[in-house]
Amino acid sequence: MESYEAVCILNAGEQDAEIRITVFYEDRDPVGPYCFSVAARRTRHLRFNDFTDPQAIPRGTAFASVIESNVPVVVQHTRLDSRQEANALLSTMAFPAS
Amino acid sequence: MESYEAVCILNAGEQDAEIRITVFYEDRDPVGPYCFSVAARRTRHLRFNDFTDPQAIPRGTAFASVIESNVPVVVQHTRLDSRQEANALLSTMAFPAS
Amino acid sequence: MESYEAVCILNAGEQDAEIRITVFYEDRDPVGPYCFSVAARRTRHLRFNDFTDPQAIPRGTAFASVIESNVPVVVQHTRLDSRQEANALLSTMAFPAS
Amino acid sequence: MESYEAVCILNAGEQDAEIRITVFYEDRDPVGPYCFSVAARRTRHLRFNDFTDPQAIPRGTAFASVIESNVPVVVQHTRLDSRQEANALLSTMAFPAS
Repeated sequence: MESYEAVCILNAGEQDAEIRITVFYEDRDPVGPYCFSVAARRTRHLRFNDFTDPQAIPRGTAFASVIESNVPVVVQHTRLDSRQEANALLSTMAFPAS
Repeated sequence: MESYEAVCILNAGEQDAEIRITVFYEDRDPVGPYCFSVAARRTRHLRFNDFTDPQAIPRGTAFASVIESNVPVVVQHTRLDSRQEANALLSTMAFPAS
Repeated sequence: MESYEAVCILNAGEQDAEIRITVFYEDRDPVGPYCFSVAARRTRHLRFNDFTDPQAIPRGTAFASVIESNVPVVVQHTRLDSRQEANALLSTMAFPAS
Repeated sequence: MESYEAVCILNAGEQDAEIRITVFYEDRDPVGPYCFSVAARRTRHLRFNDFTDPQAIPRGTAFASVIESNVPVVVQHTRLDSRQEANALLSTMAFPAS
């Protein structure tokens, strides 16, 4: 298994969600938005490694993200760290900003 | 140990809790409600693998859940990933929706 | 290392905190309060395995806890699962109840 | 890999953040503030092991921290425990105090 960072987005509502993700770095300007949709009453996994537009996220670079949605969604962030023999999984709920 | 996802529900109040869980998928309609009760002043573990009514949750499928209760409860979600030699445990508190 | 569950309590304020912990079980009445103090401007770790008064917590039993304080504190819950070769650590912030 | 505790701070706003961290111990007075800045629209990792001013944090000592900022930021706390063969990662979002 390869290391990855991912978000799982739950749209429990009746309206499709338009998601805009902005990625922040330590030493250069933020990049984005990366745009996705999550259909009504669906969940969707997004892996940051798969992001390509407007540009790929460099591997091995620390980053943070802000996730905006036009409708209420719930976001869980997961990281799989496979640099060691035993993978480490960590997960946090996204911090809700009003 | 088998991989599993579970929720631990704490009902610290004096009234029994009627719990309704709806499971959301990536590419099909949500299923539910799965109904459980948690007695007053009790805690209860529920494993998603054990859910059967209205239908079992397919193994190896990504899903998310919304948990509704008629009284205030606290929900902790835990996942044991045993695909590797060393199990990984992750846990998050459920996001409270008003 | 032995498996354990612990809470780390931070009292960042200027007044000592009187902490009351009630432990909830799946199939019997809650037990408590277990009483502790956390001095002003101090942090304190409490291991549930060390609780003795009013009664010890049975090993291998699922439980949940409610933590009350007379002043604002921050609580982090940690579990070390050493049943396997590689220990698993999980941690969540306590859910704040008003 | 060496064990460490770190915080990742995201400043998604347009104004630089002045960060003040106070470290709390179990049996002595808190130490701080440790002062850092996080530029506007940047993220920054801080390892507690690197803190030197006003004083280093003793290794192997339990501590907690309060993080203050002059502008809104998001803080994720991560701990890597390398005392065992398989590293354990744990992460929690900082608890927001008003």
